[in-house]
Amino acid sequence: MQKQVLSDIEIAQKAQLKQIYRIAEDLDIQQEELEPYGHYKGKLSLSLLDRLKDEQDGHVVLVTSINPTPAGEGKSTVTVGLGQALNKLGKKAMIAMREPSLGPTMGIKGGATGGGYSQVVPMEDINLHFTGDIHAITTANNALSAFIDNHIHQGNQLQIDARRIVWKRVVDLNDRSLRKVIVGLGGPTQGVPREDGFDITVASEIMAVLCLAVDLKDLKNRLGRIVVAYNFNREPITVNDLGYEGALSMILRDALKPNLVQTLENTPAIIHGGPFANIAHGCNSVIATKLAAKLGDYVVTEAGFGADLGAEKFLNIKCRAANIKPSVVVIVATIRALKMHGGQAKDQLKEENVEALEKGILNLEKHIETIQNFGLPFVVAINKFITDTEKEVAWLQQWCKEKGVRVSLTEVWEKGGEGGLDLGNEVMAAIKEDQNNFTYLYESNESIEQKVTTIAKKVYGAGHVEFATTAKLQLRQFGQAGWGDLPICMAKTQYSLSDDPTKFGRPQNFTITIRELKASIGAGFIIALTGDVMTMPGLPKQPAALNMNVDEEGNVVGLF
Amino acid sequence: MQKQVLSDIEIAQKAQLKQIYRIAEDLDIQQEELEPYGHYKGKLSLSLLDRLKDEQDGHVVLVTSINPTPAGEGKSTVTVGLGQALNKLGKKAMIAMREPSLGPTMGIKGGATGGGYSQVVPMEDINLHFTGDIHAITTANNALSAFIDNHIHQGNQLQIDARRIVWKRVVDLNDRSLRKVIVGLGGPTQGVPREDGFDITVASEIMAVLCLAVDLKDLKNRLGRIVVAYNFNREPITVNDLGYEGALSMILRDALKPNLVQTLENTPAIIHGGPFANIAHGCNSVIATKLAAKLGDYVVTEAGFGADLGAEKFLNIKCRAANIKPSVVVIVATIRALKMHGGQAKDQLKEENVEALEKGILNLEKHIETIQNFGLPFVVAINKFITDTEKEVAWLQQWCKEKGVRVSLTEVWEKGGEGGLDLGNEVMAAIKEDQNNFTYLYESNESIEQKVTTIAKKVYGAGHVEFATTAKLQLRQFGQAGWGDLPICMAKTQYSLSDDPTKFGRPQNFTITIRELKASIGAGFIIALTGDVMTMPGLPKQPAALNMNVDEEGNVVGLF
Repeated sequence: MQKQVLSDIEIAQKAQLKQIYRIAEDLDIQQEELEPYGHYKGKLSLSLLDRLKDEQDGHVVLVTSINPTPAGEGKSTVTVGLGQALNKLGKKAMIAMREPSLGPTMGIKGGATGGGYSQVVPMEDINLHFTGDIHAITTANNALSAFIDNHIHQGNQLQIDARRIVWKRVVDLNDRSLRKVIVGLGGPTQGVPREDGFDITVASEIMAVLCLAVDLKDLKNRLGRIVVAYNFNREPITVNDLGYEGALSMILRDALKPNLVQTLENTPAIIHGGPFANIAHGCNSVIATKLAAKLGDYVVTEAGFGADLGAEKFLNIKCRAANIKPSVVVIVATIRALKMHGGQAKDQLKEENVEALEKGILNLEKHIETIQNFGLPFVVAINKFITDTEKEVAWLQQWCKEKGVRVSLTEVWEKGGEGGLDLGNEVMAAIKEDQNNFTYLYESNESIEQKVTTIAKKVYGAGHVEFATTAKLQLRQFGQAGWGDLPICMAKTQYSLSDDPTKFGRPQNFTITIRELKASIGAGFIIALTGDVMTMPGLPKQPAALNMNVDEEGNVVGLF
Repeated sequence: MQKQVLSDIEIAQKAQLKQIYRIAEDLDIQQEELEPYGHYKGKLSLSLLDRLKDEQDGHVVLVTSINPTPAGEGKSTVTVGLGQALNKLGKKAMIAMREPSLGPTMGIKGGATGGGYSQVVPMEDINLHFTGDIHAITTANNALSAFIDNHIHQGNQLQIDARRIVWKRVVDLNDRSLRKVIVGLGGPTQGVPREDGFDITVASEIMAVLCLAVDLKDLKNRLGRIVVAYNFNREPITVNDLGYEGALSMILRDALKPNLVQTLENTPAIIHGGPFANIAHGCNSVIATKLAAKLGDYVVTEAGFGADLGAEKFLNIKCRAANIKPSVVVIVATIRALKMHGGQAKDQLKEENVEALEKGILNLEKHIETIQNFGLPFVVAINKFITDTEKEVAWLQQWCKEKGVRVSLTEVWEKGGEGGLDLGNEVMAAIKEDQNNFTYLYESNESIEQKVTTIAKKVYGAGHVEFATTAKLQLRQFGQAGWGDLPICMAKTQYSLSDDPTKFGRPQNFTITIRELKASIGAGFIIALTGDVMTMPGLPKQPAALNMNVDEEGNVVGLF
C-alpha cells in the first residue's frame, strides 16, 4: 500500500546502498582502479579495460521501445529492472546507461534514473552534477568557441570565415533565449561580431566524441578531427588546425573514465555519457558498454527514444565503431502509447480502449520488423501501468502469441527486479534459442544518399526520400571532402516513424525530407536533419525547478 | 641543481602524497565527515563545524601583498610555504585558499596553486575541475538567467524591465566575445531579444554568496535576496520573487562543502571558493576559514591582489560578516615589484637598481600604514627571486630594521617549508609580542559615500573622491531601497593604489572616481566601480592552452 504513494526520490533516499568500494570489490575491481566520488559513486580507471582484455565478453542486451508518448515508455526503468532481475536469477548482470542532462531535469522531465523500485542511485547526485562529466564537456565545448573567436580576433591566420563557423556554444540547461545570439559586440577590443547560438551540452559533438572514443588516444584524435568552421575558400578548419586538441583532451581527461554506481537492489551500473538521441546517437559511452561486458555475464543497456532512432543508431553507428555484437533486443511498449498510436486522445490514455490498441499495434509491429531486419532476437516487454486493464493486457499478449513473438509483462516499477523475472528468463531464452544473424543495415562505403534512403525506407517505412537544395549541395561537398564513407546519424522527431510528430501509428507512403546535413567528423558520422530538430529545449511556464529545494540537513527534495 | 630546472607540475607530480583519508584522520575528522573525490581530494561535511563549535579557534594569519606586477608577488606560494613552515616548527597549521579559475589558467597565467616547493596538490586537479564547485556556480548562475528570460517569455507577470536586468550569464573561461551579446533572437518562439553579457564565473555574485554564507540556510537566504532586475516601476526583483532560491540551493548543495587537500609537504589545506578580487571580495569561503581555524592552531590564508584590495575587503567585509578576528598580517613584497614602483621598466626588473628600490619602497610603506590603520600586527615577507642581488636584499632589510618593522627573507619557492622557518618564527612572535587592536575602518551604518571616502583616503591615499552622475543617482536610489547599511566592495585596478593602473609607487593627491555602484544584495555589499574593471578577461594571441596536453597514460603536461 505505502509503496504506491512514495515518490521516486523518497524511494531512492530510503535505499540501503552499499559503499561503492564494496560494489567494486564484488566485481574484482582493484582498489587503485576505483576513484571514489563520495561514498556511493566512483570513476573506474581506463587501465581496467586493458587488464580485462582477454576476458570473454558478456551478452549485450539492448533495451529500446516503440515511438514514445511525451512521458516516455519507461525504457530506463525496464533497463534497471531487467538488470536487477537477471541478478536475482543468479546471473552476473551489469547495467550501462546514459548520464542525465540537468536542463530537462529542471524543465519538465524530472530525473532520468529509472523509476519506482527500479532506479539507479544516488539519484539526486546522478541527476545533478554526478561526477562532473557533463560540466567538463560544457567547458571543453565553450573553450573551443573561445579559441575560435580569439583566433579571428588576433589576426585570423587561418582565414576563418566568421559566417561559416559551424561550432556552437553550449549550456547544460533549457534556455531558449540562447538559441540565436550575436556575440562579439562592443567594439574592436571586444572581439568580432557574428551570429552564434547555444545548444544544450548533450547535443554537443564533444559528447558524441566522448561516447564513441575507445581510449584516450582515440579521444584526442577524434577531437582533433572536429570541423569547427570553413575558411574563405570553403575548406574545413579543424581543431588540429587551431592546435587545441591537447588542451581539450586535458579538460576531458577525467570525463572519459566511466562512472560506477548501483541500483536500489545493489546491481552494479555504469553510467557514462549522455548524447541526445536526435542530433547525436543517443547511447551511453562505448567504454561503458565494453567495460560492463568485461565485468558482467549480461550487460543491459538502453538507447534513446524509439527503435527508429536510438536502436538504429546503436546498431549502425555504435556497434560498428566499437565492434559490439548485441545478443538480444528488448522492445518496451506501454498500453498507453499503443492506444495513442491507435488514435486515442492524449488526455484519455487511462481509459480502456481495446480498439485503439488494435489499431496502434502497427507501431510495435514496425519496430519488430526493424529489429528483425538487423537479424537480432528480441523480446517485447510490456511496461505495466496501474491504469492498464486486464482486457487490454490480455489482448496484447494474445497478439504477440499469435505472431510467435516473445512477450513479457513487467512490473519492475512497482516490484523492482522481482517484477522482471519473467522478462529476464525470456531474454536468456531468446539468447539461447533464437537465431542471431546480426548485420548492419548498410555498408559505410555506400553513398550518403543511399545510406539515408536505406534507413528511411527500412526503418521508418518511408516511401520516398527528398533532399532539399541545401542538402543536395552538401551531398556533393561532403563527398569531395572525403566524408562520404561515414555512417549516418539521423535527426528526426521521436514521436513518429515519419518526420512529422503528429503522425502516429505506422504511417504509409510518406516522404522523408532531408533539410540539411551536418558533418560530425570527430564523432565520425554525418547528421541528416529532418523536420525541426530541437537542439536547445525551452522551459515551460512552471518549470520543475520551482518545486526543487534542499532542506536544512542538505537533503534534496522535489527532484522526483 | 636539478631543483632549478623542474617546472611546477613536474615537482607536483613527483610529490609523495598521503591518501586524503589519512590527512583527514590526522585532523581527527571522522570517516563519515569526509567524502573522497578520488584518492587525494575530499569534501568535508558541514556538520563538522557544528561538532567543533566549542573548540578554540586557531590564529588566523592573513597573507597580502604590495601592488603586484602582472606576474603576481607569489602570495599563494608564500601562503603555502608559511603553512609548511609552521608545521615544521611543530605547530598544527592549516592553509585556506581560493579555488583557481580555469579561464586565466588556460589564458596567460598557468595554475594558481603556489609554486616550486610550496604548492597545494594534486595541482592538475585543483587547477582543472577540482571537485566541481565552480561548475556548480556556473550552472546556478546560468539557470537563474534562463529562469529570468523564461519568466519574461511566459508573460512577464513580475513586469521585469528587460532593459534593466542586472543579472549576467557566466562561463569560467576567458572569452572576450561574450562580453556584450544580444540574446533571444529568432522570433516569438525563441525568447525576448535583449542585450546581455557574460562575466567569468568567479566574478558571479553567486561565487561571493557561496564564500560569505555561514551555512546552508544562510546560503539560501542570500540567494533569495539577490537582485536580478528592476521592474517597470524601477523596483528591485529578487530571486525570491521568481521563486528559485530552492532550486539554486539544490544546485549548490555540494559546492558549499569545503575541499580538503594537502601541500607537497602534506600540510592540510582547505581550498574553497574563489571570487575575483576586483568585482568581488577576493577571499576563500568563510566556511573554509572558520573550519580551518577549528582544525588548526594556525590558519594561513590569503586575499587576492594587494592590501588595498584583498586585505581591505577581507578585513572590512569578510571578517565583519563572519566575526573573524585575524591575529597577524603577512605583507609579501618582491624586490622586482618594488623596483617597478620606483620607476624601473618592466622588462628590466632583473637588473640591480637600488635607487629604484629606494623610490619604490613608498608603495610598501603605504600598505604597512594601511595594516596599522586596521590595528593589526604584521610581518613583511620578502619573496626571494633568483635575480635579487645581495645589495638589494640588504637595503630592504635595513629599511625595515630602521622602521622597526618585522621582516623575513623567504625562500619557500626553492626550499618549501624549510625556506619559511624564519617567517614562521616572526609570525608567531608578532602574534605573541605585538599589539592587536583590530578594528574595521568604517562602521556599516555610515553612508555609502562616507564609507567609500574612508577607503579611498585611508587605504589608497586619495586626496579626493568624485562620484559620477550615475553613481550619484544610485547613492540616492540605494539609500531608498534600504541598502545603505551594507559594507563596500571596491572595484579598482590591482596595479596601482590609485584607479589608474599606470601610476606606480605611492601616488599623491589623486582623485578616485566612482563611476557606478552595483548592488550585490545576496553577497551583502555594495560594489563601487572605479576605472575600467574587467569582469571577463580575453585570451592572448598564444594562449597557454596551446601547450597543454595529456599523455597516453592520462598525465597532464604543459599546465605550466
